[in-house]
Amino acid sequence: MAMNRVVRLKSRPVGMVKRDDFEIVDEPLADAGEGEFRVKIEYVSLDPAMRGWISPGKSYVPPVEIGATMRGFAAGIVDQSNHPDFKVGDAVAGLLGVQHYAISRGERCYKVDASQAPLERWIGGLGMPGQTAYFGLLDIGKPQPGETVVVSAASGAVGSLVGQIAKIKGARAVGIAGGPEKCRYVVEELGFDACVDYKGGNLADDLKAACPDGIDVYYENVGGEILDAVLAQMNMFGRIPVCGLISAYNSTEPVPGPYNFRSILVNRLTVRGFIVFDFADRIPEAIAQLGQWNAEGKLKMREDVRDGGVDAFPDVLNLLYTGGNLGKLVLKL
Amino acid sequence: MAMNRVVRLKSRPVGMVKRDDFEIVDEPLADAGEGEFRVKIEYVSLDPAMRGWISPGKSYVPPVEIGATMRGFAAGIVDQSNHPDFKVGDAVAGLLGVQHYAISRGERCYKVDASQAPLERWIGGLGMPGQTAYFGLLDIGKPQPGETVVVSAASGAVGSLVGQIAKIKGARAVGIAGGPEKCRYVVEELGFDACVDYKGGNLADDLKAACPDGIDVYYENVGGEILDAVLAQMNMFGRIPVCGLISAYNSTEPVPGPYNFRSILVNRLTVRGFIVFDFADRIPEAIAQLGQWNAEGKLKMREDVRDGGVDAFPDVLNLLYTGGNLGKLVLKL
Repeated sequence: MAMNRVVRLKSRPVGMVKRDDFEIVDEPLADAGEGEFRVKIEYVSLDPAMRGWISPGKSYVPPVEIGATMRGFAAGIVDQSNHPDFKVGDAVAGLLGVQHYAISRGERCYKVDASQAPLERWIGGLGMPGQTAYFGLLDIGKPQPGETVVVSAASGAVGSLVGQIAKIKGARAVGIAGGPEKCRYVVEELGFDACVDYKGGNLADDLKAACPDGIDVYYENVGGEILDAVLAQMNMFGRIPVCGLISAYNSTEPVPGPYNFRSILVNRLTVRGFIVFDFADRIPEAIAQLGQWNAEGKLKMREDVRDGGVDAFPDVLNLLYTGGNLGKLVLKL
Repeated sequence: MAMNRVVRLKSRPVGMVKRDDFEIVDEPLADAGEGEFRVKIEYVSLDPAMRGWISPGKSYVPPVEIGATMRGFAAGIVDQSNHPDFKVGDAVAGLLGVQHYAISRGERCYKVDASQAPLERWIGGLGMPGQTAYFGLLDIGKPQPGETVVVSAASGAVGSLVGQIAKIKGARAVGIAGGPEKCRYVVEELGFDACVDYKGGNLADDLKAACPDGIDVYYENVGGEILDAVLAQMNMFGRIPVCGLISAYNSTEPVPGPYNFRSILVNRLTVRGFIVFDFADRIPEAIAQLGQWNAEGKLKMREDVRDGGVDAFPDVLNLLYTGGNLGKLVLKL
């Protein structure tokens, strides 16, 4: 009998996720019903937002319920279909869950062109992370030619694209990342103008050296001390799209906001939170533009592909919060 | 020999201002030179921003220099003029300084109609505080009919107008103020729908009771714990114009930002700092609209007029930070 291996949430984690917070089980593989299709998943996306999805309390989407399949973006190939728009062999990506097979009605799942880019890229630079970079930077950050754009988690799935899109728009791109290897990657491979190592011990000074004209746009992924250092160097009328606050996601204590909050007033900053679903009706625009830049060779994208199947999910997820990945983190099934 | 009594900054205050931080001196009264006019000041405005003007470090305007006349809005009557647009007897208001007489070339000073409203109101509800309420609420807060608008320092010069303008725009207006007397004033005299006493010991619960549908717009004047309580109750896509952070102005220690900073991300809030000068080219629009609402009886304005001349300036200024005033605080000369 064919089986499906599924990661189910067992308990709400306290702090970093533990293997024990999940149940990883083999279940009989279901067939696609009327109006449904089945996907054999090849890659599962690991995204910082996942930690929020399994926390209790109000967030931007309802939390994953205890006992439910872990929510996750994934890409794979249709292997059964009773759906008019999806046929066997189609490559698809979407919110398919952390499991080997998914049944879908086509909601939050779309066909992708596997000849244009490898499957794993459709849950990375051409998928949700790429779209997140695109809308947050362009619609909220609004970088102008000659301005300085700073992005934290610069070597990550979203940050790596933010800086490259800033460059395409004529701005100066400065990354913040942890450690010399990531910083080297950000400058030498991704083409940022500079990258500050926040683990280097001189964050404020290094940031100042990298941004001699101050900071006009700060694309925020992490929060905490990095946000404070940046706030102190923002230019008048600067913009701060808030995409993530990863430094606090695993905290078990209340985390104070930035000490330099007053910079928002003094410098008349605009700070705006968003998630990619706020721009749902414009996702095709983002995919088309990102795909074009990618085809023109203007965007470098790198996936950090991990093996181990769904069993490795809890450990691999934690790499996002310890800075253990370089590039878009995906799990190969 | 005619004399002018002038408040000059002697040293940068640490914490609350002290009488000793200023020198209050009698100096020979100058005559208006070519292209200038002289104003006999009748009312000096006390504004929370004054504390920032005498602090060192970067702020939105250069700090008052040591030895310089204390910056301040004031209103009075022209008593000498060599300026084509201002004649003796004209009522004027503007950035004239904390002193009995001011010489002006007409910069940041404009004629006011003393028959439409008493002179002191032109540095209050129809002056800078009124304009600040107008632009911050309408341009950044963008209240929609039926939405809930919360404003802190609700009995103050700016806050009292924010709630009343919100009501004019069809929104529900909820104030936050300190003590039952101010709260009674905000609801019974100003016509807010509710007012929460932040000194009552149940800020979060009282705010929830006053805002059963959550908070769509929070007009921020104070920061600190009040901001935290509000952030926890903001609705999706809410707006927070940041006009002031008065709770921190006298702090000698670094002040943490809001613990609920994450609400900006989760609820996709827009937080934007501003000062009235950002809208300088539209000030006539604000004055005309506020004047019209005032003439129609739609805006209640109250001045808290203090005696004691310029000598009382340091003590009266501190009332703003201890909550000792009710209504727009002005000093009568």
